[in-house]
Amino acid sequence: MKAVQVIGYGERVRVGEVKEPAIVDPHDVIVRIAGAGICRTDLHILDGQLAEAFHPTLPYTLGHENAGWVHEVGPAVDAFSPGDPVIVHPAVTCGLCTACRSGNDMHCPTWRFPGVDGWNGGYAELLRTSVRSLVKLAPKTDPTRIAPHADAGLTAIHAVKRLAPFTYPGSTVVVIGFGGLGHLAVQLLRVLTPARIVVVEADPGRLEWARGYPVDAVHASGEDGGVSVVLDETNGLGADVVLDLVGDGRAPEHALRMLRKGGVYSIVGYGGGVALNHLDMINRELTVIGNQIGSHRDLIDLMELDRSGRVVLHTRCFPLDEAADVLAEVAAGRVPGRAVLVP
Amino acid sequence: MKAVQVIGYGERVRVGEVKEPAIVDPHDVIVRIAGAGICRTDLHILDGQLAEAFHPTLPYTLGHENAGWVHEVGPAVDAFSPGDPVIVHPAVTCGLCTACRSGNDMHCPTWRFPGVDGWNGGYAELLRTSVRSLVKLAPKTDPTRIAPHADAGLTAIHAVKRLAPFTYPGSTVVVIGFGGLGHLAVQLLRVLTPARIVVVEADPGRLEWARGYPVDAVHASGEDGGVSVVLDETNGLGADVVLDLVGDGRAPEHALRMLRKGGVYSIVGYGGGVALNHLDMINRELTVIGNQIGSHRDLIDLMELDRSGRVVLHTRCFPLDEAADVLAEVAAGRVPGRAVLVP
Amino acid sequence: MKAVQVIGYGERVRVGEVKEPAIVDPHDVIVRIAGAGICRTDLHILDGQLAEAFHPTLPYTLGHENAGWVHEVGPAVDAFSPGDPVIVHPAVTCGLCTACRSGNDMHCPTWRFPGVDGWNGGYAELLRTSVRSLVKLAPKTDPTRIAPHADAGLTAIHAVKRLAPFTYPGSTVVVIGFGGLGHLAVQLLRVLTPARIVVVEADPGRLEWARGYPVDAVHASGEDGGVSVVLDETNGLGADVVLDLVGDGRAPEHALRMLRKGGVYSIVGYGGGVALNHLDMINRELTVIGNQIGSHRDLIDLMELDRSGRVVLHTRCFPLDEAADVLAEVAAGRVPGRAVLVP
Amino acid sequence: MKAVQVIGYGERVRVGEVKEPAIVDPHDVIVRIAGAGICRTDLHILDGQLAEAFHPTLPYTLGHENAGWVHEVGPAVDAFSPGDPVIVHPAVTCGLCTACRSGNDMHCPTWRFPGVDGWNGGYAELLRTSVRSLVKLAPKTDPTRIAPHADAGLTAIHAVKRLAPFTYPGSTVVVIGFGGLGHLAVQLLRVLTPARIVVVEADPGRLEWARGYPVDAVHASGEDGGVSVVLDETNGLGADVVLDLVGDGRAPEHALRMLRKGGVYSIVGYGGGVALNHLDMINRELTVIGNQIGSHRDLIDLMELDRSGRVVLHTRCFPLDEAADVLAEVAAGRVPGRAVLVP
Repeated sequence: MKAVQVIGYGERVRVGEVKEPAIVDPHDVIVRIAGAGICRTDLHILDGQLAEAFHPTLPYTLGHENAGWVHEVGPAVDAFSPGDPVIVHPAVTCGLCTACRSGNDMHCPTWRFPGVDGWNGGYAELLRTSVRSLVKLAPKTDPTRIAPHADAGLTAIHAVKRLAPFTYPGSTVVVIGFGGLGHLAVQLLRVLTPARIVVVEADPGRLEWARGYPVDAVHASGEDGGVSVVLDETNGLGADVVLDLVGDGRAPEHALRMLRKGGVYSIVGYGGGVALNHLDMINRELTVIGNQIGSHRDLIDLMELDRSGRVVLHTRCFPLDEAADVLAEVAAGRVPGRAVLVP
Repeated sequence: MKAVQVIGYGERVRVGEVKEPAIVDPHDVIVRIAGAGICRTDLHILDGQLAEAFHPTLPYTLGHENAGWVHEVGPAVDAFSPGDPVIVHPAVTCGLCTACRSGNDMHCPTWRFPGVDGWNGGYAELLRTSVRSLVKLAPKTDPTRIAPHADAGLTAIHAVKRLAPFTYPGSTVVVIGFGGLGHLAVQLLRVLTPARIVVVEADPGRLEWARGYPVDAVHASGEDGGVSVVLDETNGLGADVVLDLVGDGRAPEHALRMLRKGGVYSIVGYGGGVALNHLDMINRELTVIGNQIGSHRDLIDLMELDRSGRVVLHTRCFPLDEAADVLAEVAAGRVPGRAVLVP
Repeated sequence: MKAVQVIGYGERVRVGEVKEPAIVDPHDVIVRIAGAGICRTDLHILDGQLAEAFHPTLPYTLGHENAGWVHEVGPAVDAFSPGDPVIVHPAVTCGLCTACRSGNDMHCPTWRFPGVDGWNGGYAELLRTSVRSLVKLAPKTDPTRIAPHADAGLTAIHAVKRLAPFTYPGSTVVVIGFGGLGHLAVQLLRVLTPARIVVVEADPGRLEWARGYPVDAVHASGEDGGVSVVLDETNGLGADVVLDLVGDGRAPEHALRMLRKGGVYSIVGYGGGVALNHLDMINRELTVIGNQIGSHRDLIDLMELDRSGRVVLHTRCFPLDEAADVLAEVAAGRVPGRAVLVP
Repeated sequence: MKAVQVIGYGERVRVGEVKEPAIVDPHDVIVRIAGAGICRTDLHILDGQLAEAFHPTLPYTLGHENAGWVHEVGPAVDAFSPGDPVIVHPAVTCGLCTACRSGNDMHCPTWRFPGVDGWNGGYAELLRTSVRSLVKLAPKTDPTRIAPHADAGLTAIHAVKRLAPFTYPGSTVVVIGFGGLGHLAVQLLRVLTPARIVVVEADPGRLEWARGYPVDAVHASGEDGGVSVVLDETNGLGADVVLDLVGDGRAPEHALRMLRKGGVYSIVGYGGGVALNHLDMINRELTVIGNQIGSHRDLIDLMELDRSGRVVLHTRCFPLDEAADVLAEVAAGRVPGRAVLVP
């Protein structure tokens, strides 16, 4: 079958023929891919940034935002049948550890991450995954356009749920960065919190895009990364929560400066870092939260919000064959919303 | 009356006569000091480390760990009478803001911090505070020996309560640093969590002292600050929580390295800092929590644990006149437990 | 001044002249009433149903849903000035107990309840209350129309906040009874939870009114009080939460039958009761939550939602002189939304 | 093999030969029983009290508190091997629904309950269960004596964890009934909460037994079921939490009367019921919580507390052959602690 593989760091992906996956474990499911979303993490993988964290063996197939239809099921699978439309949670987990049983699948010590850790991903016609990773969609749903929910949406809902307890009517959540994740995050903030939502973004086109969403304020980040506008919006006190979807450059430093006493810095974007000063951490009693992908339950909740129309994903589809060029476009920031590869 | 004042950064304190405080606000209470605890923060004040955060006008009287007896009450005070034994919460707060009403007194935007921000503290015979800051002790209690609970104990119980939700039977909490705060923290962890408690400390005398407490393991921090022993204790997974009572040098870096996936780094000690790497923060889904002093409610809870004997404070008393020398002894780490000045 | 007083149980209220209130405690505030909402509790008071719980001395002035302008302040009050528009939290609390400090004002052991427990309420030109009970409104706000938020809205937001942790996208909250509280509850459920909202109501006029709100389903309660329609709406599983705003007749029994395994029965309406069967309570692992009025913080949050237009109160104003007739109209269920008496 | 079966309601159990269980589902595990605890629920089953809730087909084998060694595993099982010592969670669950994934196994809509719902239980030599139900014990552990943890201990830890958030230093938890569950509940309250523990019990022998545990007070229930002694212990305010392990007769009514404002009534015992008055529920803002068996995670936590010696089970062993007589002894209240049948 056709697949898009990483063959070396710093190199373009290779689109070519690979062997079809087969059932190995009795809980395995083969999914026929309808769409596979392109994520910034794919670019980081190609740069080699994640090699140390996941040390995958090359070559392997990219793609961790997958949706499609059940193609074949293993002998221990009875909850799904061929033809069922599904979205695929990005992690393959054991189901028996306390993390898996407690709604923290992503902390499963033996988890695998198809498309990232060397297990072949969904930039292909077929994907092998586990029954535990599937969420069944309503009959006749077209899985193609929702593929990016499997990671972009999943990460956004996970982060928003975890910051929600820190919000209340009149509280302020600042979202740094408005793109594929950002347009989902603001919709999720609207549904899952009563907070005022303030978007800070550098790019004029994205600023304009953000203004089309029901947020309370949209500001150009400007010279100080938005610190002064956030202080202006909050009587000089600062934001209750900053959700950082950028995570590199000076964004993290600005995020910390925007916070009020007792404030929460929620990290989703990565690539950079920040120096914490302990006296400041205790005097302002700040909290910093790192967010991984969400749980299977998060994905179920997200699919319900998609189904009911409370969260709408902005997707653009491209043929799988053009993967190399599309990745370059995404890297250049020229694809608003999320790009989906269609086999 | 006699008082111990900071007259300049980098200088010794001055013990001398100052004017007695008087009722100003109708909610004021004058407390006759039984004992005033010495805190590391006093040393940081004298070094000038807190000047930027609190910009106090010099000279003023030190002392934010105070206990004694009610001496005089303002006209709006009816819950306390002269002679009542009391411990004094270190913050003076408004009582009307949402922080004060929600159990987060220490986030009151108009709070004052006697002994730290220029308001005269309790290294003196009398202290002016607010009725809101008092916790009444059982009749006939001697307030002297418990004065350090007003900050050391208060900070410890606050931090332990906030990390408790992350613990469970079989979880591991590492305490870095065993001294005045540490000996309280381990007792509080025992009462308020079901976790295994592992102490990491560099000083041989303090290590020996720690072994006298009901903790699950005590380790010399060694070359890697305890990272390898903690990994050994936890099947290579790392600790669920690290409570850092040191907060400078390489302790913060070691604390982060000790954590398991989903782990929590709880900061109490300060003076230093640490560089966060965002990829690590999200891959391991870490949380970093800064802890200020505790709330009035925390102090009530602590006094109950003191009363019932479930937490025992190790205190050594010194005459107020000897404050300058005692501060030097504390700075040199030669006073185990907490030092209390007695007027 | 003019006031409306309860002079005997089972008797009509008396509208007449009474003495003006005066500052007694240094924290007292006299409020000039703009509007005072009529609550079902006023009818229960007049019937004598609350005599045993509060044993007030008759006669006294009714009215616990009050808003107006600061008229005079006691000597310990500096946060408010004459002329400030305010809404009045219905409880007068001490501010020093742990309940008051923890956001549970309504559990203050020495609380007073003007308009209910014999302390004169707001069916009058002036009301004596405490500074702790006030929430300042935005300058130039007309306090009249929002008076019912002081109890109806406050109880609704308190109950909704407490049930919110049991909701998630796709969960179902059933609201039994759509009237003064109900029209606020559904708006608050929309803002504070992601749940599906199902209204069950017997009265055709109220059913029609409910259909004008953004709820997911509105059903006539019918012969079985709505049990079968709720089971139909939830694949036979039952609702996650039932919010019972009726609380008498067979509503409580129906509420319990509507619940799914792990479900929550949230009680706001009263007058009746229900027999719990312990085997059912454990087999279905049900939770039953009684809700009092909300906290001061709840009232602040509600005022923010009112200000931002996310919750809109349906109010009808009447002259204070006509109180007796208006109470009869409310008793007969002929006033949709909430009635407000204007001095 | 030998097994003890219920053959009719109101009849004695039959001890006889039955067919050995065999692997059916690929996730099945056959456990060789070391010990099977006798639970009051077995008596309720024999009385027919649970027939309506579970409608089992008779005859079937009793026994839902099981521990032993893995005997045979299905083809999809790789985490366990024959010979592993295990304790068996009483529910067989699907592992794929949101309840199973969120730590609420016992709300799994397709759960089965061996020994209760007609699936053969553990009063036998062999038991068929699922890999999902097993908790591995430390090598060389004797599973016999800990079998009652599988239900008695599991229910106790589940209930205690759920009431723990309502406790604080100085709070009071009343435990009604001191027997097999009670002696575990007080130990768990000591480890998992900082509350004062007050035991109320009618039987003199059990009162004496209770006095041997680290509780704060033990009282004979007396004429008013302990209401007056609890009020005396709490300055007339009432208890923060009442944990009712009896659940019939007048215990539920007394439990409600013992509660303070904001109090929590936690139900574990069953057989009876109580009439709730809605005015009282809202005026005192009470919460009533029904508790089912605990989750798999609860069982893991309990095994850790057993292993570390923080919770000690009082067990007495009997031969499986004598089941009928032992059940009669348990019914008569003549077996202190928990009885275990050994094949």
